[in-house]
Amino acid sequence: MNERQRARRPGGRSARVGAQVHQAVTELISECGYGNFTVGEVAARAGVADSSIYRRWGSLETLLTDVALTRLNMRSPMPDTGSLAGDLRTYAAQVAREITGPDGPAVLYLAIALSSNGQQGMQARDDLRDERTRQLQSMLDRARERGERAPDALDVLDHILAPMYIRVLFGMGPLTPDYIDGLVDRML
Amino acid sequence: MNERQRARRPGGRSARVGAQVHQAVTELISECGYGNFTVGEVAARAGVADSSIYRRWGSLETLLTDVALTRLNMRSPMPDTGSLAGDLRTYAAQVAREITGPDGPAVLYLAIALSSNGQQGMQARDDLRDERTRQLQSMLDRARERGERAPDALDVLDHILAPMYIRVLFGMGPLTPDYIDGLVDRML
Repeated sequence: MNERQRARRPGGRSARVGAQVHQAVTELISECGYGNFTVGEVAARAGVADSSIYRRWGSLETLLTDVALTRLNMRSPMPDTGSLAGDLRTYAAQVAREITGPDGPAVLYLAIALSSNGQQGMQARDDLRDERTRQLQSMLDRARERGERAPDALDVLDHILAPMYIRVLFGMGPLTPDYIDGLVDRML
Repeated sequence: MNERQRARRPGGRSARVGAQVHQAVTELISECGYGNFTVGEVAARAGVADSSIYRRWGSLETLLTDVALTRLNMRSPMPDTGSLAGDLRTYAAQVAREITGPDGPAVLYLAIALSSNGQQGMQARDDLRDERTRQLQSMLDRARERGERAPDALDVLDHILAPMYIRVLFGMGPLTPDYIDGLVDRML
């Protein structure tokens, strides 16, 4: 990276190191598997010193939690298409794209592994889940305000999101548009 | 299976060491989180030498895959109650007990982490999934032979198993009998 690129980067050196380290973690999860690499390997891949990682994150667990939250919060905004069927189909297709993309499984492992990263990870997982449920709830509330019959947010989790997550986690084929629309139609 | 494995007497020293090492792994996953411990820590907890673990399993990844498969294969036999509703309720309740028991989350992480343990883990995950699907399919076939209408095995995965897995993984409350029966009733 040359001086000009460096100067254009919002946030400066610290943001740049953060992005490099996050990218290194995502790559190592895809290549070696979650839990199968060390801070030293992350540092080498990111081109920074081990001590920079320890100074900023304190431990590998904290770094993994930070990467998980950053990736999971980058998610696209909730759709607002004017109908519940349209919203749910668009939302389900967005989620499918995220979890089947190149970093998709890595991000799913991170999300799930949050709960095995002690009290801090557990809290982060709960906050993230609650925030997601609130976003979904506001989509469903909009549908009710338009006079549509809408399911509960937990039904959407159980019967649209959970099947997609489990199929990706257990390597069960692509999530085709037909499959995704089928989950939504079955719910409505 | 090599000569040395074949020569092991069930119940002998080798089986005892295997059980101690497996138990140590399960405890360490619960206490420290998946991926947050070393072969040395497993050995210390199990009261064996590091070299015994390396000689038998070769690496931490292979050991984790072995623990996952052993735990997942200990599962109770498929129920045969005489009706599909009875079979599905009993089966769902069994799965719920397994994944919410003291080692439940650890076993779930192991199952999911299989796919991040390289080609060997991926193959193990696929074999396990296929074996489970066959068991489930034979339960559904029995129902059809009795003249009952039965869903596909993948529908059972999507709408009974997946919601329970995801709720446990994301820490979403206990799986009550009402909730479990509700999943089954909704499917039938």
